[in-house]
Amino acid sequence: MASFAKFWIAISASAVFLWFAFLASAPFLRHVDSYLEFLASTREVPEITPFQAPYRNVWADLSQQETDDLLGFLFDSPELNLTEASQATSRDNTLMQLGVLQPNKTDILCYLNGSAGLPERWAHVVVAQGVTEDACIVNYMVGPLPPNALTEIRPLKYIFNSGRNHVINPVPDQEDLLMWIIGELQGVSDITQKMLGTDVFASPDGLDIRAGAVYIGNRTLSAWFQFYRQDSSSDAGWLLPQGLYFKLQTATRDAANWKISQWYYNGLVYESASELREALKRPGFLLNPLNLNGPWTDTEDFGEGPPGRELPPPTMIQPSGPRFKIDHQQNFISWMGFEFFISTSQERGLSLHNIRFDSDTVIFEVGLQEALAHYAGDDPAQGALAFVDTLDNMGFHMRNLVPGYDCPAYATYLSASYHNGGASLTRKNSICVFEYTADHALRRHTSDEHVSISRNTYLVVRSVSTMGNYDFTIEYIFYLDGTIEVKLRASGFIWAAFHTPTLESAKRNEYGYRVHEALATSMHDHVLNFKADLDVAGTSNTFVRVGIQPATVEYPWDEEITTPRNTMHLVERAVEKEAGINWPAKSGEMYVVINDNSTNSWGEKRGYRITPGTGMGNPIHLSILNSTALRKSAEWAYKDLWLVKQKDTEPRSAEPLNYYVPQDPLVDFAKFVDDEDVVDEDLVIYFNLGSHHIPHSGDIPNTLMHTSASSVMFTPFNFHDRDASRRRVQGVKLELGDEETQARYFGGRHLEGVNLKETDLEPDLLKYGSERQIARNMSWIYNLIPREN
Amino acid sequence: MASFAKFWIAISASAVFLWFAFLASAPFLRHVDSYLEFLASTREVPEITPFQAPYRNVWADLSQQETDDLLGFLFDSPELNLTEASQATSRDNTLMQLGVLQPNKTDILCYLNGSAGLPERWAHVVVAQGVTEDACIVNYMVGPLPPNALTEIRPLKYIFNSGRNHVINPVPDQEDLLMWIIGELQGVSDITQKMLGTDVFASPDGLDIRAGAVYIGNRTLSAWFQFYRQDSSSDAGWLLPQGLYFKLQTATRDAANWKISQWYYNGLVYESASELREALKRPGFLLNPLNLNGPWTDTEDFGEGPPGRELPPPTMIQPSGPRFKIDHQQNFISWMGFEFFISTSQERGLSLHNIRFDSDTVIFEVGLQEALAHYAGDDPAQGALAFVDTLDNMGFHMRNLVPGYDCPAYATYLSASYHNGGASLTRKNSICVFEYTADHALRRHTSDEHVSISRNTYLVVRSVSTMGNYDFTIEYIFYLDGTIEVKLRASGFIWAAFHTPTLESAKRNEYGYRVHEALATSMHDHVLNFKADLDVAGTSNTFVRVGIQPATVEYPWDEEITTPRNTMHLVERAVEKEAGINWPAKSGEMYVVINDNSTNSWGEKRGYRITPGTGMGNPIHLSILNSTALRKSAEWAYKDLWLVKQKDTEPRSAEPLNYYVPQDPLVDFAKFVDDEDVVDEDLVIYFNLGSHHIPHSGDIPNTLMHTSASSVMFTPFNFHDRDASRRRVQGVKLELGDEETQARYFGGRHLEGVNLKETDLEPDLLKYGSERQIARNMSWIYNLIPREN
Repeated sequence: MASFAKFWIAISASAVFLWFAFLASAPFLRHVDSYLEFLASTREVPEITPFQAPYRNVWADLSQQETDDLLGFLFDSPELNLTEASQATSRDNTLMQLGVLQPNKTDILCYLNGSAGLPERWAHVVVAQGVTEDACIVNYMVGPLPPNALTEIRPLKYIFNSGRNHVINPVPDQEDLLMWIIGELQGVSDITQKMLGTDVFASPDGLDIRAGAVYIGNRTLSAWFQFYRQDSSSDAGWLLPQGLYFKLQTATRDAANWKISQWYYNGLVYESASELREALKRPGFLLNPLNLNGPWTDTEDFGEGPPGRELPPPTMIQPSGPRFKIDHQQNFISWMGFEFFISTSQERGLSLHNIRFDSDTVIFEVGLQEALAHYAGDDPAQGALAFVDTLDNMGFHMRNLVPGYDCPAYATYLSASYHNGGASLTRKNSICVFEYTADHALRRHTSDEHVSISRNTYLVVRSVSTMGNYDFTIEYIFYLDGTIEVKLRASGFIWAAFHTPTLESAKRNEYGYRVHEALATSMHDHVLNFKADLDVAGTSNTFVRVGIQPATVEYPWDEEITTPRNTMHLVERAVEKEAGINWPAKSGEMYVVINDNSTNSWGEKRGYRITPGTGMGNPIHLSILNSTALRKSAEWAYKDLWLVKQKDTEPRSAEPLNYYVPQDPLVDFAKFVDDEDVVDEDLVIYFNLGSHHIPHSGDIPNTLMHTSASSVMFTPFNFHDRDASRRRVQGVKLELGDEETQARYFGGRHLEGVNLKETDLEPDLLKYGSERQIARNMSWIYNLIPREN
Repeated sequence: MASFAKFWIAISASAVFLWFAFLASAPFLRHVDSYLEFLASTREVPEITPFQAPYRNVWADLSQQETDDLLGFLFDSPELNLTEASQATSRDNTLMQLGVLQPNKTDILCYLNGSAGLPERWAHVVVAQGVTEDACIVNYMVGPLPPNALTEIRPLKYIFNSGRNHVINPVPDQEDLLMWIIGELQGVSDITQKMLGTDVFASPDGLDIRAGAVYIGNRTLSAWFQFYRQDSSSDAGWLLPQGLYFKLQTATRDAANWKISQWYYNGLVYESASELREALKRPGFLLNPLNLNGPWTDTEDFGEGPPGRELPPPTMIQPSGPRFKIDHQQNFISWMGFEFFISTSQERGLSLHNIRFDSDTVIFEVGLQEALAHYAGDDPAQGALAFVDTLDNMGFHMRNLVPGYDCPAYATYLSASYHNGGASLTRKNSICVFEYTADHALRRHTSDEHVSISRNTYLVVRSVSTMGNYDFTIEYIFYLDGTIEVKLRASGFIWAAFHTPTLESAKRNEYGYRVHEALATSMHDHVLNFKADLDVAGTSNTFVRVGIQPATVEYPWDEEITTPRNTMHLVERAVEKEAGINWPAKSGEMYVVINDNSTNSWGEKRGYRITPGTGMGNPIHLSILNSTALRKSAEWAYKDLWLVKQKDTEPRSAEPLNYYVPQDPLVDFAKFVDDEDVVDEDLVIYFNLGSHHIPHSGDIPNTLMHTSASSVMFTPFNFHDRDASRRRVQGVKLELGDEETQARYFGGRHLEGVNLKETDLEPDLLKYGSERQIARNMSWIYNLIPREN
């Protein structure tokens, strides 16, 4: 959702209606009914033996106690001059949000290797400074915690390569401005009634307004707004644009300098409401159809479906409890040789830290940095829409997950707490951790004597951030061989465009497709930037590109051919300087981060390969070149991945407040890539997930997740001496035997009469050996089998 | 596996040992034990009401009755002059294999639309013609069936664009040649003993030989062979190359013209065994280490793993039986609005036919055409190795699937029968059909009033072809929105190279990596060609490329900026002529097959999008340019996908026997792409799955499937008026309420104390409404929940 737009969305959100709609018959209903029972019986399996992390979680967000102590300190500070939110106006200084300021990697490594004690705890405090005419949003670092004689409040600058710790607040007086806009729009209700058939903020489902093109200047703001119908029953307002737009301009904090300066309808700009009003009176003024709510926006269909819909589908169960362990105090997870810490941040959600596999370091930190959605269109809503979602707090919007649907019912659910506007919120069950067994094996082979197969069971750590219209499912997947996957899926409502049939761009589908009466899709790029601070068997790493290239070679044994042989070979080169890199054309290269000083038993340098994963094809980067909307605020979006040297002063590629100063962002990622040497260095990879989303009728009412996924995988590459999954996988090896034994055990399943000699060797489903008794502790499997009838 | 090599592999396969190895302790063993019980209790749920396909399966392979009738007819034919296999020598004519000759699409469409009756049944008969000095392999078409007065035997030429129906057989006298080679190699056992420590074909695990570089001339054959250790315990011979190679040459069918002409070791060519023998006697002759079998090649590790390995992992169950229906007579499947037929072919395995979704035609035929593996290396084994696996019969090698491992225990298993060498074989349980529920939802959205989520349950049709060392899992996946996915996974043993440490190529990892004492991986491309004959809402289709391109545009509402806006837009163009097309660079294009004459309710042309799917990034095409090994035999391998006009004379892109005449193949795919117009035509897409496989230590002992997948998806694009999954999906919609109700139902899971105003709106896991009683018929779900102890 919108960064800036969040202020405006609140307008509709504040008109809240709880709808206790009666849910009609058929599959959805039945599930809802049984869901009560289902959830009531869902319990986390208690841990018998408490499990303890080997270290403290130094990345953890502030605890409630830390927060309470800190709040007292901050509100006592004359320097900050804070007013409690409940008492404050926009002319006061208020506490916007606070969280931990994570220690520098340098200090953490010293702690982890025992050369230093626990790093100090510091807070990152964001203050909305309203007392001065030039309202600002200011970052401070406060520590060490808990507050004591040494605790100080410092401008937080060292992680911002702008050298500044503040941005100008382009909307310091939100409430005043909102009231002013409501007043103005009430003055044009004759227009909205005539054109759109209702008033702004009429209840329950009247019009609301959402920002499109936004121009932030030096203490000035211009913003185009479009009217939408609200929909309190299923949030479908995003599909109900009305095609009427106006431009707001604010030059100072004084309402005398605020104005609604232009209107836009059907491809034409009107310089004032009066001009539009006059035009409306003229005969032949073309009124477009409206987007009205109806069953077409329902996300559920309670009607009858094809046969079988009424039956329960297959479901994953976990009869013996989780096989991973969690230290709930430290948010530390251990599974099949993997160990890692979890942290949450209000802005960026979930991150994972110090991921080790069989004690080897693999990834020091992996987590979301920023989520960009960039639209295109020929109207003032879609034409300049670009969001950076951390500004609206991706972590804060990690909503409660629904057991049995978002994650398996048996998953372990974790919570996260945030401190925002001076208050605290716990997001219960906003992270789930679970094992799942894939529908396919991890490996298999049938030989003439055996068939041997291994199960592919993996661990998932998942959260979902609902950012207004869109639901981003972000997860980290761990596989038995040491592979780690980062995966994104998008669902929810598209932010659709008004379809103006007379426009040339609509006729040629230049920005999307018509998907309802007066509705068109609006093409957009989702680009989500992630940091992966790889420490492959240590911090001294090199990024190697291995090209798979055609070659023409003469071999001494190849004398039967008259010309040299056309074949292929590998061409390896290290990336020597910091760089932005795209996924290879034609999948013709491997990207491997190796440790030059660590080899496996065969002399090969140990590495982890970075590769597009199990999303739809390759993840993308931003299509737009030099985006006018973003200016310099999201330079990470222009390549698929980036390779930079780790620095304590560059912990994050993005900063939410960049949105307010796109021309001069607090963190300019372009400056990270400044030609430094990256051979045998501590490397950080920033990579993008996302997709070019060109919605079509199948995105109505919601985008589907099975085709919206993107992923990057980190897979061991010569990292071990042999496949590491062998010693942690489960599987089966069956010996092949004669028909008699086969028939005895497998009834109707034995081989039918065969008369090929070769079939004597056939592996059928047959096992015999020295041990026939059933391992009773494995009898669980017996319960999983569907019985006759 | 090898096409040509299959003859040679038989040498080791014929030395069969059934090993009843005692399986040691820990997870694998326990599973094996309980697997007996598990399988014994696995029953297919009987179908209560018989289900009938609306049409006959006109693509079905010959039935046993048809085959029996046909065999009588063929052996009576003086023209074919066939000898029964049991009586025949290589100087006779024998029946190699037979199967159905599928009717032309033209005739099938007439049958399906009712304008004609059932197409005639014809057989495709392959004869090994040995009676003439110039031995050939000859294709015939025989029909109509069952044999009657009108039945005739015709040269089968019309589906081969070479105009020929036969190829020269380069190895007509296999058994004689084999005996001759064994004799020759026994004469050099002093060399193999000295260099490799054992004899050829010594039992149980002595040496065998496998072909590498093969040169097929006009009735001449040259082939390099390498010695390998056999491994009858787990098929690990593929990991045991010995680094000693010899070249066989045959000029005529007369053994007097056969010779072993050269030897190769440690980078040097020796012109004869004597020359090598002499060299061996010289002091300082460098003997490389050997690849000997050991625990390192075991595909199972029965030892102790990390904690948790001993516990059963999560498992999918299907408590209420399948929700799809199968007409077992016609191999017709119906699931959630999808309907399609299955056929199997000995050469190519599984194909799907006449796939419809809610009665709309989508894909007339989809199935494997050919499977190519092309290696590179600097020795005479890997350096020229290229297989086309249909020659070794991908269908015939669809081995029995293991319930609970290859597919869920509850899956429905289908069988396939083949007629080969005059005999019949039924591959029981070689195809599985099952539903699975993904670990993630199909869609979700959290609004302020509700959270609504839909389950992602999909249907899989799967088979596994084990081609010697490699196991190819090929599957077709159907999703609730109408999406169809074709997915390939590879596992099994890599065909590894001998590691010669002194060679420059080994030092610079030019063709792979060292993975054991004397073992290196050998880079190779897997390229598997599939046909997808799309009929998107009918046969008149157009392939459209929709580019997502940067643009700079001036908008009338955009006066706040001083220069035109940098944005993006869609640029659509139809492909007008037959063409080879690669997946777009930077994922910057959509490929959509549309029907120009069919629009949805919003006026958009109905289409299906073709896109890289959920494999690892984009599928690949062959890296090698103008392969010396393949010559013209697999021209389909050089692009990612191909767009051609459907023709009855071009039913398949590849022909197994191409392998024997690479310079002048029976089917030259390049001739398919001959500049014909493809706008509003019946289109066929040929696309490639596969990967550049650069194995590393993690491929030992077996390649893992979670990172070897490649996939292509066909997704509805403006095909319906709105998401088609809505009316067939299951899901849950929960209303949000107050803390009291929440606490009542969810115990410890309710929101913790929150003091943010906004949290009043929070969706927690809460449902209330007018209906509280549990739907008893859904109580199954109650059983799925792990209980406290």
